[in-house]
Amino acid sequence: MSDPLVAELMAALPADRVLVDPDVVAPYLHDEAEWAVHGRAAAVVRPRSTDEVAVVVRACARHSRPLVPRGAGTGLSGGANAVDGCVVLSTERMREIVEIDEAERLAVVQPGVVNDDLRAAAAERGLWYPPDPASSPWSTLGGNVATNAGGLCCVKYGVTRDYVLALEVVTASGEVVRVGRRTAKGVAGYDLAGLMVGSEGTLGVITEITVRLRPLRTGTPRTVVGFFDTLTAAGDAVSRVTARGLQPSAFELVDRVCLHAVNAWKHAGLPEDAAVLLLAQTDLPEPAAEQEAAAILAEFEAAGARDAVFSTDPVEADALFDARRLAYPALEQRGEALLTEDVCLPRGRLAEMLARVEEIAARHDVMIANIAHAGDGNLHPLLLTPHGDEAAKRRAQAAFDDIVDAALALGGTVTGEHGVGLLKLPGMRAELGPEVLALQRAVKQALDPQGILNPGKVVG
Amino acid sequence: MSDPLVAELMAALPADRVLVDPDVVAPYLHDEAEWAVHGRAAAVVRPRSTDEVAVVVRACARHSRPLVPRGAGTGLSGGANAVDGCVVLSTERMREIVEIDEAERLAVVQPGVVNDDLRAAAAERGLWYPPDPASSPWSTLGGNVATNAGGLCCVKYGVTRDYVLALEVVTASGEVVRVGRRTAKGVAGYDLAGLMVGSEGTLGVITEITVRLRPLRTGTPRTVVGFFDTLTAAGDAVSRVTARGLQPSAFELVDRVCLHAVNAWKHAGLPEDAAVLLLAQTDLPEPAAEQEAAAILAEFEAAGARDAVFSTDPVEADALFDARRLAYPALEQRGEALLTEDVCLPRGRLAEMLARVEEIAARHDVMIANIAHAGDGNLHPLLLTPHGDEAAKRRAQAAFDDIVDAALALGGTVTGEHGVGLLKLPGMRAELGPEVLALQRAVKQALDPQGILNPGKVVG
Repeated sequence: MSDPLVAELMAALPADRVLVDPDVVAPYLHDEAEWAVHGRAAAVVRPRSTDEVAVVVRACARHSRPLVPRGAGTGLSGGANAVDGCVVLSTERMREIVEIDEAERLAVVQPGVVNDDLRAAAAERGLWYPPDPASSPWSTLGGNVATNAGGLCCVKYGVTRDYVLALEVVTASGEVVRVGRRTAKGVAGYDLAGLMVGSEGTLGVITEITVRLRPLRTGTPRTVVGFFDTLTAAGDAVSRVTARGLQPSAFELVDRVCLHAVNAWKHAGLPEDAAVLLLAQTDLPEPAAEQEAAAILAEFEAAGARDAVFSTDPVEADALFDARRLAYPALEQRGEALLTEDVCLPRGRLAEMLARVEEIAARHDVMIANIAHAGDGNLHPLLLTPHGDEAAKRRAQAAFDDIVDAALALGGTVTGEHGVGLLKLPGMRAELGPEVLALQRAVKQALDPQGILNPGKVVG
Repeated sequence: MSDPLVAELMAALPADRVLVDPDVVAPYLHDEAEWAVHGRAAAVVRPRSTDEVAVVVRACARHSRPLVPRGAGTGLSGGANAVDGCVVLSTERMREIVEIDEAERLAVVQPGVVNDDLRAAAAERGLWYPPDPASSPWSTLGGNVATNAGGLCCVKYGVTRDYVLALEVVTASGEVVRVGRRTAKGVAGYDLAGLMVGSEGTLGVITEITVRLRPLRTGTPRTVVGFFDTLTAAGDAVSRVTARGLQPSAFELVDRVCLHAVNAWKHAGLPEDAAVLLLAQTDLPEPAAEQEAAAILAEFEAAGARDAVFSTDPVEADALFDARRLAYPALEQRGEALLTEDVCLPRGRLAEMLARVEEIAARHDVMIANIAHAGDGNLHPLLLTPHGDEAAKRRAQAAFDDIVDAALALGGTVTGEHGVGLLKLPGMRAELGPEVLALQRAVKQALDPQGILNPGKVVG
């Protein structure tokens, strides 16, 4: 091994920590972002402790070499993609749930703990960790924190940042520090823990996470569904539910393309002429849940829904949500490349945005399906292109850029919950403008003066 | 006027904006923190617009002179205290509620808007701005954001940071920038809006604030009260309520000294032999509220409360909360100097902390009353000393320091919601340690290289 950094890492760490075989290294070089470029890594390191992480960071700092931290690699923006000559640091072997404290309602976990595993362990103690990205069976808390992951619950319960109390972080110089606190409140100094959340590994390597938990929800949520003939009617329903002060615990949208895909795959018998299906859940205690479900139903109907119903039993409620659950896998069944967009609009502009996406799809001749966390205005257009069709890929890329532009034109953001990574860098520059970008870069420069931590991500 | 900076400000701004008369300037030189030192300002400026703020910041930057931003001056840590030769920038004339948007559930306000005024305006639209510091009739949103203000609602609804979506900020170089977003979610770049919250005017001057709102609560909260003979029993009650998964919308503690003071002032007939009064409110929809109130009552009784009751009507509920509401004014009635401490403990350590405070009061011969946001572990020991008694003041200062040390020893933070300002600087240094302090200073240096923004606060 002629790379002195790799030789140093091999000498400093137990043998199984450092991977260099190109075949073994290959899956660690990128996340799940279709089309995001990635480079070649000098090595992949899988430390088992904070001290081992610090050894890796200090070695990279000494050699002025890039370090790319990585969770489970389920990201959709290229945030974990390798750059040439880097060391990829995978947290996959740091998967201990260190502590769950019922009295303080918090959990302490290593970054490699899988989201669903924490949720299950918390549930055993009567507690609940709400953030629920679609990747929750595989994605890890470290990655969730690094990207400030969202999910279905956000509309009522907030995103990952709302749950992070404290972090142990290895800084760019290899020091181990603790930021944040274990107490419910605290204002001692700048909120560095909050700053680390969503920074995609560019400001430090997260080695331990303390999250706030909620009491476990009891009871079964009630589900309301409504099919709408037009995007405008569905948008009106979203606005009406919000303006009436209702607070669904999930509020999702599935478009016609998804409905067709689910029917094609599962013969689900969903109405194929509807433009949009809206699904809402309420988790209030009864009888407030029934009242809220009835109120949501009334607003759906007032906005022009047909076939609007709300469930009275849990099995039915679950079945109603299947159209949402099955939409993504149904599209995957088609065997095409799937590029997941992620823009967030003011709720009231969602219908207008969907109309623009329809127009963009037609103009570029690209198939685009849409799912959305409707209550948050967080839209995921899914761009489908046949594998190997370079012309289709170019058209889809142009459509992707147009969607970003349209979101900005409607007062939205270029990324609601997936992160900047590589794919959203141009959009973020357009969104923030040069003055705010300069502030972002000043923060990066302050905390990583050598620029070794995940270079090229977030701030470019 | 021989000061060239003041002359420049007078030339650049309309006549009524700049105050220099020492008698007029005097009340602007400090906040309500007893004993925090303050210097003499060159001038007080009361801009009416963001552009005028930018004029002031640019002038200070050109002259390398300190700028101390200030809201209503209700702070309790000295965060708004003048330093010698500074310009005090008061936001008191920027008090426009720019927008309340029901569909997006947000409000846009200037920094000088009073907390209660926003709450009232939101209520007219069926919306609610939860953060409710005790200063809410006077304190302004700018100050609330600068200190990340808390209050009674935090225990269920979170602190100011949880409501800030976006900020317009004048940077240290006098540029006007917007950070954050208007959408419900967003992860485009580092969370600079979150970083500004709680930064006490040291990273930028906040000129406009976009906050998230909630639907207005309907119904009357139910109140549960319980008197406890020992601190341990009260601490046990707090832990039991938390561990049972109950979520009171307020959960307060009032100690014996406060009960005596309220009785002395209002002849309230509160039991004077009780060590602690706990008060909890629940705002769930009925009948869940009644069930939660009954469950809280049961936990109070299991922990050994006597005279535990819960209200069945709103007037009675309100009367029960009077002991909490009247505690601080009752102490003020004594006509002594009142120093308000603000430490936050893990909830489970609250009783132990109260015992330590009792011991500290005895050791230093200082009268200390205690109120607490018990459900958050956020304790406010109130140190009383006769005006002009220098020896008593020195003893109280020593007690203040011991309380901070005790909070740290129990795993707490030196400030739960009042901010670092000047009074908590030594405590914060002890809490964070040199490595994290260095990161804090790096952030300050990055965003205010000249160090003109509220120098000496937060990071010292």
